[in-house]
Amino acid sequence: SAVALACAYFDLEAMIYMVRISYEQKQYRGTLMRTYGAKIVPSPSDLTEYGRKVKKEKPDHPGTLGIAISEALEDTVNHENTKYTLGSVLNFVMLHQSVIGQETIAQFDSIDETPDYIIGCVGGGSNFAGLAYPFMADDRFRDTKFIAAEPTACPSLTKGEYRYDFGDTAGLTPKLKMYTLGADFTPPKIHAGGLRYHGVAPSISALVEEGRITPYAFNQIDVLNAGVLFAKSEGIVPAPESAHAIKAVIDIALESKKAKESRTIVFNLSGHGHFDMLAYSDLMDGTLNGDVPEGIS
Amino acid sequence: SAVALACAYFDLEAMIYMVRISYEQKQYRGTLMRTYGAKIVPSPSDLTEYGRKVKKEKPDHPGTLGIAISEALEDTVNHENTKYTLGSVLNFVMLHQSVIGQETIAQFDSIDETPDYIIGCVGGGSNFAGLAYPFMADDRFRDTKFIAAEPTACPSLTKGEYRYDFGDTAGLTPKLKMYTLGADFTPPKIHAGGLRYHGVAPSISALVEEGRITPYAFNQIDVLNAGVLFAKSEGIVPAPESAHAIKAVIDIALESKKAKESRTIVFNLSGHGHFDMLAYSDLMDGTLNGDVPEGIS
Repeated sequence: SAVALACAYFDLEAMIYMVRISYEQKQYRGTLMRTYGAKIVPSPSDLTEYGRKVKKEKPDHPGTLGIAISEALEDTVNHENTKYTLGSVLNFVMLHQSVIGQETIAQFDSIDETPDYIIGCVGGGSNFAGLAYPFMADDRFRDTKFIAAEPTACPSLTKGEYRYDFGDTAGLTPKLKMYTLGADFTPPKIHAGGLRYHGVAPSISALVEEGRITPYAFNQIDVLNAGVLFAKSEGIVPAPESAHAIKAVIDIALESKKAKESRTIVFNLSGHGHFDMLAYSDLMDGTLNGDVPEGIS
Repeated sequence: SAVALACAYFDLEAMIYMVRISYEQKQYRGTLMRTYGAKIVPSPSDLTEYGRKVKKEKPDHPGTLGIAISEALEDTVNHENTKYTLGSVLNFVMLHQSVIGQETIAQFDSIDETPDYIIGCVGGGSNFAGLAYPFMADDRFRDTKFIAAEPTACPSLTKGEYRYDFGDTAGLTPKLKMYTLGADFTPPKIHAGGLRYHGVAPSISALVEEGRITPYAFNQIDVLNAGVLFAKSEGIVPAPESAHAIKAVIDIALESKKAKESRTIVFNLSGHGHFDMLAYSDLMDGTLNGDVPEGIS
């Protein structure tokens, strides 16, 4: 939706390849983008050769971020005056997001506190990096622990391999050294669509490999229950993605309480859940699946 | 949803009688309230004598705010330790909302401007009064014009009568002197559910009668198109209710441009439209009705 709005401001046409399962689960996010003037198509679509190929093999494919990236890239290279944009993984995206961490540090400068934990959810990695990297780069925070929260349904950091892999599914991108579940991994249809990516940004992957970032994976039922508790406590309904970070916060807070230790915990509430209310309906109606696929966990 | 959240904070049970058409159109607002822990029932419901009576006469009744108020009142008087709460019309509600206008005046104090127009949408009247009354009470703003925007589908101020009427439909409230379409008026199923009230707060009605407030009525298609223009320009998708005020703002801004006059316009963006995306879908899909019922306009 940020891309759709930016295009509205600069009078550009926006074409969004939205992962089909997200297109269905987050229907009104599509409406939001259309309100901004964008054209939206569920991916895999009939608009690209790669999309048609995927649909032919598996007509009811729920889509993946990797497939959507492949389609958007194919569309871009086949049309003049078209640019491709992506919200995560690459270094320049992380750099722009780092305004979040810089502002958080400025807030810490105004109070007499140091964070013991910095927590974010990780799909591609940009919201996590945006908060964490400025702290990591600052020696005053050398004792701070960094925690990346991901879904058990798409456990790139906790169960993936650290190796070279494609960023997309069709193999159009250069290979990147990263934690990956394999470019053709199709995660279950969890509501945290933003975390259904097979890989993680190379810089985050390297920091996990070095032990500077600790990853944890959470089940979507626990995650959404954490989201409900947060909503009742703070009034803000978090996006399912962000609720992964909240689940980690609650666990650490309870552990601290048990240990009778006072800890300062910072997390990135990366998005509200106003376009994810279906997830909360499903949770409260008892129709939500746990999300651990065969063979993982 | 404010009541649901307040009850969560104070560990009270919340029971919401939500107008059935809003329950359907704003489904995820119901989910939001459930997330906060409230119980929601579409009104007319089977839970009250009055609700059952209305449903018996007209099984597919879309509901009205007047019926929902009647049901909530009946529920309250029949249960001990139960309190009834309402978001508009009454003086104490207006008083609490006046923080909006007081803060706006504080902002004007910090710049060298005086508003030429103050605009709000009017259902019961609280968001309008909350913005406008502090300005009206301050002699520095004696030349400011006050404009109340309402739907052509429920034109209480522009087509109603100024007389005594019940606040609810069952006749449980004291009679109030106000502009009214009649306590049993059932407006068309427009998306601006918050403006589907047959009457308007007595104090606003009196100020309209005296000519201090000028009411205008707008069709929901024009209103939602104004909402789309605002979304594309500002990034914020307004609630259909608030979009009535925006439609008035746009009209006055265009008129000012034509007259080559510079005017300062203030309006109350009383709510975002994240739970009203169905309205925008319907608009963009061309399935939205104009809303002028027979015999009006």
